[in-house]
Amino acid sequence: MLINCVAYQEGKKLADIPVEEISEYLARPGYFVWVSLRDPDPAELARMKDEFCLHELAVEDATRGNQRPKVEEYGDSLFAVLQTVELVGDEMTVGEVDVFVGPNYVLSSRRNASEGFLGVRARAEREPHLLAQGSAFVLYALMDAVVDRYFPVVDLLESELEKIEDRIFIRGSQRANIERLYELKSKVLMLRHSVMPLMEGVGRLYGGRVPALALDTQEYFRDVHDHLYRIAGTVDTIRDTISTAIQVNLSMVAIDESEVNKRLAAWAAIFAVFTAFAGLWGMNFKFMPELEWKYGYPVALASMFSVAGYLYWRFRKSGWL
Amino acid sequence: MLINCVAYQEGKKLADIPVEEISEYLARPGYFVWVSLRDPDPAELARMKDEFCLHELAVEDATRGNQRPKVEEYGDSLFAVLQTVELVGDEMTVGEVDVFVGPNYVLSSRRNASEGFLGVRARAEREPHLLAQGSAFVLYALMDAVVDRYFPVVDLLESELEKIEDRIFIRGSQRANIERLYELKSKVLMLRHSVMPLMEGVGRLYGGRVPALALDTQEYFRDVHDHLYRIAGTVDTIRDTISTAIQVNLSMVAIDESEVNKRLAAWAAIFAVFTAFAGLWGMNFKFMPELEWKYGYPVALASMFSVAGYLYWRFRKSGWL
Amino acid sequence: MLINCVAYQEGKKLADIPVEEISEYLARPGYFVWVSLRDPDPAELARMKDEFCLHELAVEDATRGNQRPKVEEYGDSLFAVLQTVELVGDEMTVGEVDVFVGPNYVLSSRRNASEGFLGVRARAEREPHLLAQGSAFVLYALMDAVVDRYFPVVDLLESELEKIEDRIFIRGSQRANIERLYELKSKVLMLRHSVMPLMEGVGRLYGGRVPALALDTQEYFRDVHDHLYRIAGTVDTIRDTISTAIQVNLSMVAIDESEVNKRLAAWAAIFAVFTAFAGLWGMNFKFMPELEWKYGYPVALASMFSVAGYLYWRFRKSGWL
Amino acid sequence: MLINCVAYQEGKKLADIPVEEISEYLARPGYFVWVSLRDPDPAELARMKDEFCLHELAVEDATRGNQRPKVEEYGDSLFAVLQTVELVGDEMTVGEVDVFVGPNYVLSSRRNASEGFLGVRARAEREPHLLAQGSAFVLYALMDAVVDRYFPVVDLLESELEKIEDRIFIRGSQRANIERLYELKSKVLMLRHSVMPLMEGVGRLYGGRVPALALDTQEYFRDVHDHLYRIAGTVDTIRDTISTAIQVNLSMVAIDESEVNKRLAAWAAIFAVFTAFAGLWGMNFKFMPELEWKYGYPVALASMFSVAGYLYWRFRKSGWL
Amino acid sequence: MLINCVAYQEGKKLADIPVEEISEYLARPGYFVWVSLRDPDPAELARMKDEFCLHELAVEDATRGNQRPKVEEYGDSLFAVLQTVELVGDEMTVGEVDVFVGPNYVLSSRRNASEGFLGVRARAEREPHLLAQGSAFVLYALMDAVVDRYFPVVDLLESELEKIEDRIFIRGSQRANIERLYELKSKVLMLRHSVMPLMEGVGRLYGGRVPALALDTQEYFRDVHDHLYRIAGTVDTIRDTISTAIQVNLSMVAIDESEVNKRLAAWAAIFAVFTAFAGLWGMNFKFMPELEWKYGYPVALASMFSVAGYLYWRFRKSGWL
Repeated sequence: MLINCVAYQEGKKLADIPVEEISEYLARPGYFVWVSLRDPDPAELARMKDEFCLHELAVEDATRGNQRPKVEEYGDSLFAVLQTVELVGDEMTVGEVDVFVGPNYVLSSRRNASEGFLGVRARAEREPHLLAQGSAFVLYALMDAVVDRYFPVVDLLESELEKIEDRIFIRGSQRANIERLYELKSKVLMLRHSVMPLMEGVGRLYGGRVPALALDTQEYFRDVHDHLYRIAGTVDTIRDTISTAIQVNLSMVAIDESEVNKRLAAWAAIFAVFTAFAGLWGMNFKFMPELEWKYGYPVALASMFSVAGYLYWRFRKSGWL
Repeated sequence: MLINCVAYQEGKKLADIPVEEISEYLARPGYFVWVSLRDPDPAELARMKDEFCLHELAVEDATRGNQRPKVEEYGDSLFAVLQTVELVGDEMTVGEVDVFVGPNYVLSSRRNASEGFLGVRARAEREPHLLAQGSAFVLYALMDAVVDRYFPVVDLLESELEKIEDRIFIRGSQRANIERLYELKSKVLMLRHSVMPLMEGVGRLYGGRVPALALDTQEYFRDVHDHLYRIAGTVDTIRDTISTAIQVNLSMVAIDESEVNKRLAAWAAIFAVFTAFAGLWGMNFKFMPELEWKYGYPVALASMFSVAGYLYWRFRKSGWL
Repeated sequence: MLINCVAYQEGKKLADIPVEEISEYLARPGYFVWVSLRDPDPAELARMKDEFCLHELAVEDATRGNQRPKVEEYGDSLFAVLQTVELVGDEMTVGEVDVFVGPNYVLSSRRNASEGFLGVRARAEREPHLLAQGSAFVLYALMDAVVDRYFPVVDLLESELEKIEDRIFIRGSQRANIERLYELKSKVLMLRHSVMPLMEGVGRLYGGRVPALALDTQEYFRDVHDHLYRIAGTVDTIRDTISTAIQVNLSMVAIDESEVNKRLAAWAAIFAVFTAFAGLWGMNFKFMPELEWKYGYPVALASMFSVAGYLYWRFRKSGWL
Repeated sequence: MLINCVAYQEGKKLADIPVEEISEYLARPGYFVWVSLRDPDPAELARMKDEFCLHELAVEDATRGNQRPKVEEYGDSLFAVLQTVELVGDEMTVGEVDVFVGPNYVLSSRRNASEGFLGVRARAEREPHLLAQGSAFVLYALMDAVVDRYFPVVDLLESELEKIEDRIFIRGSQRANIERLYELKSKVLMLRHSVMPLMEGVGRLYGGRVPALALDTQEYFRDVHDHLYRIAGTVDTIRDTISTAIQVNLSMVAIDESEVNKRLAAWAAIFAVFTAFAGLWGMNFKFMPELEWKYGYPVALASMFSVAGYLYWRFRKSGWL
Repeated sequence: MLINCVAYQEGKKLADIPVEEISEYLARPGYFVWVSLRDPDPAELARMKDEFCLHELAVEDATRGNQRPKVEEYGDSLFAVLQTVELVGDEMTVGEVDVFVGPNYVLSSRRNASEGFLGVRARAEREPHLLAQGSAFVLYALMDAVVDRYFPVVDLLESELEKIEDRIFIRGSQRANIERLYELKSKVLMLRHSVMPLMEGVGRLYGGRVPALALDTQEYFRDVHDHLYRIAGTVDTIRDTISTAIQVNLSMVAIDESEVNKRLAAWAAIFAVFTAFAGLWGMNFKFMPELEWKYGYPVALASMFSVAGYLYWRFRKSGWL
């Protein structure tokens, strides 16, 4: 679905143009074309391929979708794949933004991402001097928008982890903890898969051998890289902490189990005393003098309770009860 | 077993040629020979070695089979080993495709792989401009076919993992889970062994110092590398998740065990009360006034049941029952 | 909040100058301006941006705060982010110091850090020859101060670990140990996040391609790098030891549990003997000759105790009691 | 102990020569000397040092033995240390082969290795064109022989692992499994110690900056490297699988334990019912009407068995029995 | 404390010289000064700094002590920090050797190390041709001495590990094993901290860009590096094995626990049979014909024992007893 197809001259919006005229505008010097697609069908992409003279392999990737994030050079143009990460309720969905960048055009196509990038275009149109920096700046602006949307996701994952941590040493919550930790881990892995390859790709847009297109915007891409690096650091800490938390959770199960076992065993011992004594005086020997005593029964009861009480006191003291 | 032995001129199929004439065709400029073998015996390979002037060590590798995936340069020719991975029922079988690539020939030999590569040749013959790009393009097409067949395998491993994950928090399924996780892990390791070394090998066919043969097809090999990278990422996520799942499964065993233990202990306590009381009134003391009461028995029963009921209510409340 | 705004000439303090005159002083050769801010608001930073001609992205980072440690080049100036780590009671707080370094100025801004860097300025003013080495030396001095404050934190973490280790093989302390280990681990991860990226950043200030500013102070930055390396080594040892300690702690829980279980089972066996014997002689068979014996009861008691005693002795011998 | 000391001319064996004449032969162009030692004593090595002008440090290493595998350059000669790995019964023994390689000589010395390398020399003498390739080819041939002997060891370790895996999910074999896994792991580590450093060393004999000696045999050393790489891959898979297997084994212990516990608890419950009922009717209350009934006893027995039967049926259904 | 302060000329000892004359000797060509200190105080080091014109930062490091091992270049001189590791009884102590190396001097200072390096000096003085190789050779000799002393420590750690391994599958030794493994691990980490950074430092003294001082002694430093590499390999194997051993030990606890549990449960079942039967015949029903039988009692006993015996036989058979 075509969202926008606009020609710019010296950073200023000229007009919405029909798709068929794109190649004409590209041929005229000083013009710049910026097209946005959403969930494009193969036919749409094929038309774009003809208008922009895109590379076959790049278009194939964009048509298939489901690519890993990357930044690839095709001659003097770039092909970037970004992944958007959105949290809808408790579910994390991963979308994709494919960006074709040439010397005087940008073609972006998003899939499976509910939030668009109209704000990026609006801001770019408000500040013509930015747009005048060329197509790499548009790529930067799109990347920056995508990466900025990772931060709230990371924050949510962090706060989810903190919530679990608050309950990790509480008895009886281990089953829920482990389920939540497991689910959190899979979300973290998903986010990591969006962040790490992109970081690698962006790393090639500043510093060393940089594509001609991006030569003047290196500091901007370094900034994006830096944001990704920060996210990656947090993500790794979360992963590391989840592993430890799972281990600790298992320890807590074992410790709780062992405490419950001790308590039960203590009570079992106290009851066993009663039963053993009662069994003793329930024997049918003819000559058991205490059975004949007048106060035999209360004395028996008293001795039973005193032994049980002594045990109770000892178990209490050694922390078993 | 010889499958095909075809000479091409300017991308178009000329004729099936006998093996003995290969060296003659290779000597004439503008010709291109493409031979396919299946489960070749040493004699067949030796003949090929003579016709194509292949390097001794490469032929030795192809004869022995059972090589790790790799891409090696021998002078101006390449020797590539690919591994095919096929899922037959629940079993994963690993086959091998050895490809010898020279400036004007391709010799491919597959072993232990049920599915062939006729489709690759058919497509190449349908589109002569592709074949005209030379032998490296054929190597790319074969690699692409092999790598494309990894994707359904990865998908199956992923869906197997998801099936296990659906059962991981269900009581009583831990034994089956752990067996399936263990089996899944060994399959994942097998796939990884096919993917990782190939990725390393393909990485040398684009970007830096590239063999002369592959200079014009770098973008295609980058595409293959990119596919492998994506598979490798998924494979590593599966591995990581399996490790966590094994750990979590162990935790679940411990948690279930501890819950069952609590429930049993609670019932044991209730029965112990009955037994202790019964033992008490089964003692043979002469003077136990309650034994003489008319309603002694029902009162005894009532007190036993009320204590047991109280315990039941307490255990219920604290979640043990 | 502005703390200091001082102009220097040939290493010697000239005067406190108003913010508006900074750009004038910077324009005159031989002058050097050093400004310190604390928890600056965006307006303050915007003013500084104008006076010092700072790069937009660097100022944005400093305005937002919450950056990872880094050292970035912007043309011939540097932008460094350092993290301060302070232990207040049992809590670890992370602050931030942003340093803008140009050929003839240093602008430092600290956030969320209770302790300032007046000592650094005082020492620099006392020893004009140091300050005469230029702005990179001031950057070094600030870094050195920040990094020196990591050492007591590391020492505290180490001694906390040692305290836990002293208790790790003591029965009954496992629950507390595991909680403390978990908390210690999260502190260690925080410190690591301050140290590792800074180490990477400082690594680019000596050795290879060094920014022009820092050419003459390479040995100083190597020294900072070396300190960070030492801290990183200790931090990694602590992490490694914590992992082992958690594992060992779990083992200790299992071992203690198994010892307690054995002890309980031994006592249960002894009581079971009593109960079984008593049950035997509590049966109501008509013809049980021993019940009629005169010394039946004491003999019965004696045999019960001797069997129990035998069991006690055996359990003792095999280390169960 | 001297095994062989032979001079060759243009690849053909000339004569066995006495040790004292080695230096003379080396001085004449076109000659090649190949000496083999076994478990040499220091004096022997000292003599060799003089004849071949070997480097002090290399000779020291060979004298001491017990070196890690490596390939070192000393001027225009090479010093290689290889480790042989032999399985004698169930024991793995590690031997050492030290090879000194100069432009026109090879001196090899093996220690603690039962199998020699006469086959290598015999083959080399049969095919003079191979030997004519120079001393690096001899080094390659020795390495190839050593590395080829790793394969059966790896196969044995793999089949041992498979044997353990077959028993890993079988109840009651956990103790044996864990012992065998532990032993297997230590063997794997030993083999890894022979393979990894050698791989690193061989890696320097092809591709990048290659010692002059080995310039023409690069493809051969790449082949050795490739074999080592394959072994290393298998070894790492075995290690990884052992770790998982140990973890899984622990899980199986826990699962079996928990199943046994449930079964025992179920039987305990059934017996507890009997005991509780019997205790009830063993009480001595005067007025317990059912005790007087004619069919009281059989009814009591019947009710006991029916409750026990009900429990048995329930436990069966829920899979505890 | 000054130990030695000697001037050499062309490798031969000239005289012990007073500290004040060091700078004079250094100024004369052809002279070489070698000073050894032990636990120097700051004043001593300050004096040395003046005499040798040492770099401020290096002297600061030596004064503070407690440095990580490293090799640093300061202009044309080197500053090396080595750590000595000594086993006194069961304790491992880490000392430090700081070595300042200039073109014509060596200043070594050891701290907290009981064993000195007089042997190194003695040997150097005995063999003047070695000393004539210059100051880098002295550095090598000191390093070699320090590194040689790591070997017995590694051997001791290995044999300690073997001792623990011998006991790892023995019942009842798990608590002691885990304590010893934990202690061993911390020693191994200490040693690793001495070895790894030094290896990195020494790695810069041969091969690539080597400091001018060390150009002629590269092969010696490669030898030291090789020794360190060997130690590092062993240390990593020990670490790896300790981790596995801790895991295995935990498994053994679980296995033993589960075996003991089965045995206890079996005995409990046997006793429960006695108790249930006895309870049965202890009931007070009026009409229980077997109670009246003449041989009721012995028959009862016989049936009890036969059931118990049957259970015993079954448990025996299934390996529980």
